[in-house]
Amino acid sequence: MLDLAPERPEARPSRAPEAPPLLVRALRGEPVERPPVWFMRQAGRSLPEYRALRRGRSLMELATTPELAAEVTLQPVRRHGVDAAILFSDIVVPLAAVGVDVEIQPGVGPVIGTPFRTAADVRRLRPFEPDHDLPELGEAVRLACAQLDVPLIGFAGGPFTLASYLVEGGPSKSQARTKALMLGRPDLFRVLLDRLAAIAAASLRAQVRAGAAAVQVFESWIGFLSRSQYERHVAPPERALFDDLAGLGVPRVLFGVGTGHLLEAMAGAGPDALGLDWRTPLAEARRRLGPGIALQGNLDPAALLAPWPAVRAEAAALLSDAPRTGYIFNLGHGVLPETAPDVPGRLVELVRRHALEVVA
Amino acid sequence: MLDLAPERPEARPSRAPEAPPLLVRALRGEPVERPPVWFMRQAGRSLPEYRALRRGRSLMELATTPELAAEVTLQPVRRHGVDAAILFSDIVVPLAAVGVDVEIQPGVGPVIGTPFRTAADVRRLRPFEPDHDLPELGEAVRLACAQLDVPLIGFAGGPFTLASYLVEGGPSKSQARTKALMLGRPDLFRVLLDRLAAIAAASLRAQVRAGAAAVQVFESWIGFLSRSQYERHVAPPERALFDDLAGLGVPRVLFGVGTGHLLEAMAGAGPDALGLDWRTPLAEARRRLGPGIALQGNLDPAALLAPWPAVRAEAAALLSDAPRTGYIFNLGHGVLPETAPDVPGRLVELVRRHALEVVA
Repeated sequence: MLDLAPERPEARPSRAPEAPPLLVRALRGEPVERPPVWFMRQAGRSLPEYRALRRGRSLMELATTPELAAEVTLQPVRRHGVDAAILFSDIVVPLAAVGVDVEIQPGVGPVIGTPFRTAADVRRLRPFEPDHDLPELGEAVRLACAQLDVPLIGFAGGPFTLASYLVEGGPSKSQARTKALMLGRPDLFRVLLDRLAAIAAASLRAQVRAGAAAVQVFESWIGFLSRSQYERHVAPPERALFDDLAGLGVPRVLFGVGTGHLLEAMAGAGPDALGLDWRTPLAEARRRLGPGIALQGNLDPAALLAPWPAVRAEAAALLSDAPRTGYIFNLGHGVLPETAPDVPGRLVELVRRHALEVVA
Repeated sequence: MLDLAPERPEARPSRAPEAPPLLVRALRGEPVERPPVWFMRQAGRSLPEYRALRRGRSLMELATTPELAAEVTLQPVRRHGVDAAILFSDIVVPLAAVGVDVEIQPGVGPVIGTPFRTAADVRRLRPFEPDHDLPELGEAVRLACAQLDVPLIGFAGGPFTLASYLVEGGPSKSQARTKALMLGRPDLFRVLLDRLAAIAAASLRAQVRAGAAAVQVFESWIGFLSRSQYERHVAPPERALFDDLAGLGVPRVLFGVGTGHLLEAMAGAGPDALGLDWRTPLAEARRRLGPGIALQGNLDPAALLAPWPAVRAEAAALLSDAPRTGYIFNLGHGVLPETAPDVPGRLVELVRRHALEVVA
């Protein structure tokens, strides 16, 4: 048995039991006492307790064993005192559950045994039925939520990013085969993305049924696309995904890297919030998108490797530029594995102190 | 002896012997009969004649043997009929020439034996004196120019991109160590970039003395920076580099990947032209920067892997969006190794035909 005892040293502001959690209110653009804070990839290799648990186990085993996935999900909440957990998983887990021959190779990432290139490849991608194909998914969320006093964010890969792994066969610096299929066989590419959007929607619906209070779609690699490519080939399936989730009543976040040229088109796909990387100033995003969509981000994760005074200066500059409502403090991409394990927690304290100073 | 006989099947428009070449006029924003066209990384792995020459030889050997470097420089001019050659080299060649322990590993890229992290590391980076340290550089340019009827573009890496290889020790997906040094030791980082800018300037001055008619600074990874990071830490050394080259009377191009958020700041560093990747629409760049700077780009290199009708459609859309003056047709990043060797030449024909149709 794992020791899953809750252990939260920091005093936390009390709230009426009926009020939605801080994260959810911020994602909805409602008034908040301070910005909530969490970190993409807050669980994982930057934490010694994760590395200890990972020893002798594959990432896929961690992600598909409910007790282990829940424990890894809880680790950063205990250590950093963040305002949200996010389900520990990998975006290819649902693909493996529907029979795709995928392996997560250490130091490489997801590698596909037989990359997708033809209509026959696309046809073999069947729908994902979480309760049947992967009951461990909902179970991990239930176990984590039972031990959390902060909301849990559901996790899924976006259709373009999933397609990119399937078509390239693994991580790619150029996304060239994916784009060649997109431009050369737009009909087939669309079928592929529609199926992947349905898989992501099924996964997120199951996570919400199990207790997730918000969802985030990791469409990490859409920044490789030009705006017209994104609008024509990727925004429609993403819109179908967000429409599919609209009835669940939980806020929906869309995140991508290097998307400054896509913001308006991403907002048009229908999420309640956009996750931004550090290349797009928050004030510029707010000006371009208006107040109707929440913004999440966007401290440069590389900054966390600098000495603390430099980290503090970068975070303070970000906070002074941040909107007062509809804003969630986060990094612009995932916590880097080399990050010292105390730095995210110090940032959490800084965000809270900053809020106190602004109020005072 | 290599067979270096000129062989240019296409008929080329004649011009008065005194008029500057089409490329140079376009880079200066002067009236042109059509956009000139060349391709970043037009020499190299996409060409069978390059792979034949490379067999049994290291990239470093090719780049530092004048006859071989000149031959590889000429290969794409012969095959594709482009309007410019660019010196075949690697951005780390001048670093090796001043004693940096660097190796270009196949399938990886430049790897530094002892990565730069401290003031002592920076101190061991001495100035580059091309005539003394690497006379092969000027010799390769002279040999190539003697056989070319199109201008040759001088080639160098920009200071941030060179620093990134030195600090990371090789290619990096996050540039995290580089940025941590930049934020944590801005004084030291500035000294490093100043030295690298001086090395790039020395290399380009030598290439212009040997016959290069234009120069391009490959500052490929600046798109990893936020605008404020770029303006504070990188634009000043780049400005010093372009100032250093101003007296040479040749157009100076600055290229980076994913720089839509940096355009104005890059233009402020003083180049005569900006190379854009496919993420920034040409019309938007022209609107934001005005007519005072030429634009080069920006077909998605991944598009070249699609079937020809899709390539043609992408190129035609680009041309119809392109400015009539101050514009050079190119890709948004280098030709991918998987590109079929006939596709760049078909694009050259397409650009010429398009121009004829516009005139008619």
